[in-house]
Amino acid sequence: MAAELTLYTYFRSSAAFRVRIALNLKGLTAQHKFVHLLKDGGQQFGADYARLNPQHLVPTLVHNGHPLQQSLAIIEYLDEVFPEPPLLPPDALGRAWVRAIALAVACDIHPVNNLRMRKYLHKELGRSNDEIRDWQVHWISLGFDALETMLAKSESTGRFCHGDVPTLADICLIPQMANARALNMGVEKWPTLALIERAAFALPAFLEALPKNQADAE
Amino acid sequence: MAAELTLYTYFRSSAAFRVRIALNLKGLTAQHKFVHLLKDGGQQFGADYARLNPQHLVPTLVHNGHPLQQSLAIIEYLDEVFPEPPLLPPDALGRAWVRAIALAVACDIHPVNNLRMRKYLHKELGRSNDEIRDWQVHWISLGFDALETMLAKSESTGRFCHGDVPTLADICLIPQMANARALNMGVEKWPTLALIERAAFALPAFLEALPKNQADAE
Repeated sequence: MAAELTLYTYFRSSAAFRVRIALNLKGLTAQHKFVHLLKDGGQQFGADYARLNPQHLVPTLVHNGHPLQQSLAIIEYLDEVFPEPPLLPPDALGRAWVRAIALAVACDIHPVNNLRMRKYLHKELGRSNDEIRDWQVHWISLGFDALETMLAKSESTGRFCHGDVPTLADICLIPQMANARALNMGVEKWPTLALIERAAFALPAFLEALPKNQADAE
Repeated sequence: MAAELTLYTYFRSSAAFRVRIALNLKGLTAQHKFVHLLKDGGQQFGADYARLNPQHLVPTLVHNGHPLQQSLAIIEYLDEVFPEPPLLPPDALGRAWVRAIALAVACDIHPVNNLRMRKYLHKELGRSNDEIRDWQVHWISLGFDALETMLAKSESTGRFCHGDVPTLADICLIPQMANARALNMGVEKWPTLALIERAAFALPAFLEALPKNQADAE
């Protein structure tokens, strides 16, 4: 299948960050279209983008005219259609473990902290910036504590979350660690995660996907 | 592979509900062990359960001695190890769509409304029961609006979210609709979802997985 790929992205979105890493690891180039989540009342709410993504969330990846939503579904799709290098291990137990780590970030940390949640906490519940930061730190810490326990005790943990090559687990973990750093949270408290982060940023696929290295970065 | 399956479940957990449906659709029987999320300060925090699930979340499925976490990772594993009937479509685009719908529930509705979130809103932010209900209704409505748009306009929608047989998408959607009903939200506002719910509850696999039909139901 030809790689006609367009990524609707926003530099700060950690879900878009995941897909940028996956594309880089696969050696795929996507045209980037920028959806600014704060300008114009949120460009994700515009009619054109809503047709591609009725959830009004980034990212969306369009492949040969087919819009794909939800970063984990997009990455599983990329792994099926462009299998090299694989982003999931070859065995079912390994895949379950990698997906569990990915979902522990993608379900249980990220959505409770994302932009729409912070907006709601501010506008509807009247929380201050400090209180919203406390909220974010709470859920990230809870999630990282569990991930540190899981990864520190697993025999399959290597330089990356599962073995010595990056998988879907690292693709989810690293953007969440970038969010933690953006909140000035130290990551030394989670030594296994910190080592994996160091291994990841030795690879251009992770480095080049960083928010600050995007064309729409501010 | 022999089916030595133990499910750590709680009747009210909609993540456990998903796995119960998947096991039923596959015709698999798992021994149930009950983790009461409210008794004893939360049995999910006990040392024995924490070894199986360092996130302190239900469900955990143990297969031949291997503990598996995160409902979506568990269901993907079941689909790989026990392939009949399949819970994902045969084509990559279909799988991406089904996973996107599943994740729109599992990431963007469920975790922002689950027990630990409601406890935090009550204890840390001092919100009343009514305010917490408003919070839940808000996020469920936002999610269902998007899902209704996605499913109403997709040519692949049939009696179920994708075609005429249940998939991972329905396995996530139906427990979330049960949560909406438990909050006394009508579902008529989302007619496509309501039709899918009716189709689902014509099947024993969904009916028997309902919270009220569990041995630990109160």
